[in-house]
Amino acid sequence: MEFTCRSSQDNSYKIILEWNAVDRILEILQQELLIDSFYIISDSTVFRHQGRRLQSALGSRSHPFLVPPGETSKSLRQWHKIQDFLVRSGADRRSVLLAFGGGVVGDLTGFAASTYMRGLRFVQIPTTILSQSDSSIGAKVAVNHPKAKNLIGSFYQPRLVITDPSLLQSLPRREFSAGLGEAIKYGVIADPSILDLLDQHMERILAGDQELLTDLISRCIQIKIRVVEQDERETGLRKILNFGHTIGHALEQATGFRRLRHGEAVGWGMLAAGYLGVKNHLWSESEFEQLQSVIFRSGVLYPLGKLRPESILHALKHDKKKTGKSLNFVLPVRMGEVKIVSDIPQPDVLEAIKFMMKTGTTNMKNRKSKIKNAN
Amino acid sequence: MEFTCRSSQDNSYKIILEWNAVDRILEILQQELLIDSFYIISDSTVFRHQGRRLQSALGSRSHPFLVPPGETSKSLRQWHKIQDFLVRSGADRRSVLLAFGGGVVGDLTGFAASTYMRGLRFVQIPTTILSQSDSSIGAKVAVNHPKAKNLIGSFYQPRLVITDPSLLQSLPRREFSAGLGEAIKYGVIADPSILDLLDQHMERILAGDQELLTDLISRCIQIKIRVVEQDERETGLRKILNFGHTIGHALEQATGFRRLRHGEAVGWGMLAAGYLGVKNHLWSESEFEQLQSVIFRSGVLYPLGKLRPESILHALKHDKKKTGKSLNFVLPVRMGEVKIVSDIPQPDVLEAIKFMMKTGTTNMKNRKSKIKNAN
Repeated sequence: MEFTCRSSQDNSYKIILEWNAVDRILEILQQELLIDSFYIISDSTVFRHQGRRLQSALGSRSHPFLVPPGETSKSLRQWHKIQDFLVRSGADRRSVLLAFGGGVVGDLTGFAASTYMRGLRFVQIPTTILSQSDSSIGAKVAVNHPKAKNLIGSFYQPRLVITDPSLLQSLPRREFSAGLGEAIKYGVIADPSILDLLDQHMERILAGDQELLTDLISRCIQIKIRVVEQDERETGLRKILNFGHTIGHALEQATGFRRLRHGEAVGWGMLAAGYLGVKNHLWSESEFEQLQSVIFRSGVLYPLGKLRPESILHALKHDKKKTGKSLNFVLPVRMGEVKIVSDIPQPDVLEAIKFMMKTGTTNMKNRKSKIKNAN
Repeated sequence: MEFTCRSSQDNSYKIILEWNAVDRILEILQQELLIDSFYIISDSTVFRHQGRRLQSALGSRSHPFLVPPGETSKSLRQWHKIQDFLVRSGADRRSVLLAFGGGVVGDLTGFAASTYMRGLRFVQIPTTILSQSDSSIGAKVAVNHPKAKNLIGSFYQPRLVITDPSLLQSLPRREFSAGLGEAIKYGVIADPSILDLLDQHMERILAGDQELLTDLISRCIQIKIRVVEQDERETGLRKILNFGHTIGHALEQATGFRRLRHGEAVGWGMLAAGYLGVKNHLWSESEFEQLQSVIFRSGVLYPLGKLRPESILHALKHDKKKTGKSLNFVLPVRMGEVKIVSDIPQPDVLEAIKFMMKTGTTNMKNRKSKIKNAN
């Protein structure tokens, strides 16, 4: 399958969704006239599992640069190291960076590409569900600042996105589940059929079924394209993509960007946002229950560890999406439709955080004991 | 006077050229709908001389951040500090950065604006001849990497450029002369009348004559706009702006970005490029002599200190404008016209560097002894 994401800056780019696309990557790159020196940026885990496959498909024209896995690599420090690597390797304006990894690698590589020599071409080759279905599309690239996630970044289009769901087969279970966080989000904000798909086939999806996975990712890609085409610079519509992200970002920050995967934080954040939707009489309890059930079964929730609700609230205030003093929330109206609400009082936010922590944690315990009892 | 620089990205911006414009800056910003929180970025020298004037014109809505004067501030270190300053001050996406200074402050502030929260609005208020006539227009923003000048940067348009030549009156003599480097360049690449203006009125221009200065800057602005509109991304025509810059950048790098002002390096670089033009039978000796005379009288040359020609050649090889292995040079064909030549052999480049060093240094010595003898 092929999709095109149109950009206002004449920088439209193609998304190729194809099982085993990586194995014919050289042919794909050549078709898109990306034929100069390639520099692979990847993380050590992805590269251990899939690096040889990529390199052998590329032939000898590849110089890999590896970062440690995890959100902490989305840092100014790694960005500096990539610069030094590119200088050392003699990269010039014709060079092409290949981002081979999840959202962290894509965002980091994209930001490096956008700022090196005022802009190198880069290709996204996402290797996780999150990056295949979400972060590889939309031109938002960034690294984290100690004070806030994604604070340093730009809008910068890739030249091409090569999405190969076969890469997901080597993902550890935790990584796989974390990725479902953003897919669930797409269900709530734009397409109830995604939630139904997950609801009906969760077990086969978690087992890596080729057809279902490709279907799921294809639906997410199409929504993401629709949203970013209408609002490339995140002045309006695109904000709906932040469903679950307001609390999600705060959670990541309050846990030092180390404990949780991004999709996991979004999974937790959707519990809080859903609660606020119901609390504000915007959303029905029954739909919220369907969402909770899908979240729990996906395995996207990961223990928060020791964390006070107040420290999450504190982190919230640094969220860059705030305009002025009020906190913006994306809240569900019905499955497939959300609205942006900007005047949520702090006590309600705190209440939602407490609900999220209690419900999520209780459910995880129940599931654990169920598994124990079953054994 | 007002000019508009049209951008392919729908980011056209206005350049207001007006004596004493700074004193009515609040009115100007309001007309352009730039009415939110302002953050002044400046250097300590500029701010000592003109800061109070700017702040009183802005009223109380100003939070200055000062960097040390000079090219070394165009660094990742200062860029980091600006980020921290913005976080600390609570800057958000509606904030406006005001770049109040020369090319260093403009490039640094522009890069900070382009990368903070994926892009804040910024306004150029250039305070040097170089920045008023050249670097404030064209959307090239960057900082230096230890290995190469402007290596880390992007293309990012200001929302507005406010050019007030009255600010030039407080410039030290060296700074003033350094700025003429780029003005002379414009004469050679596009408009012989600039060289005639400088040739006939050098002394009054150096004395800060209002009418002549405004005329000179206006001519340079119009050329710069014409060139960047035709080639925003520096894929073709815009390269002619690099006349004098190939050797110029290498000189700055070989002297650690500390000894020379940018305009001074360009002044030296034009001597070398002019020599290569004549040597390659592209340019007439008599026009090269006019250029040399204007360069010498402008005072743009500043002693290079201890420097081996070979180390300049070495620095050249890191120049980011090289594509592949050959070095690009912009060489004069006649006054007002240049061409790009890419196959200059290294021995010729070395010869040109030696000529530049000898002629420039001899002339400076002669002028010094003339001044001594006159006393």
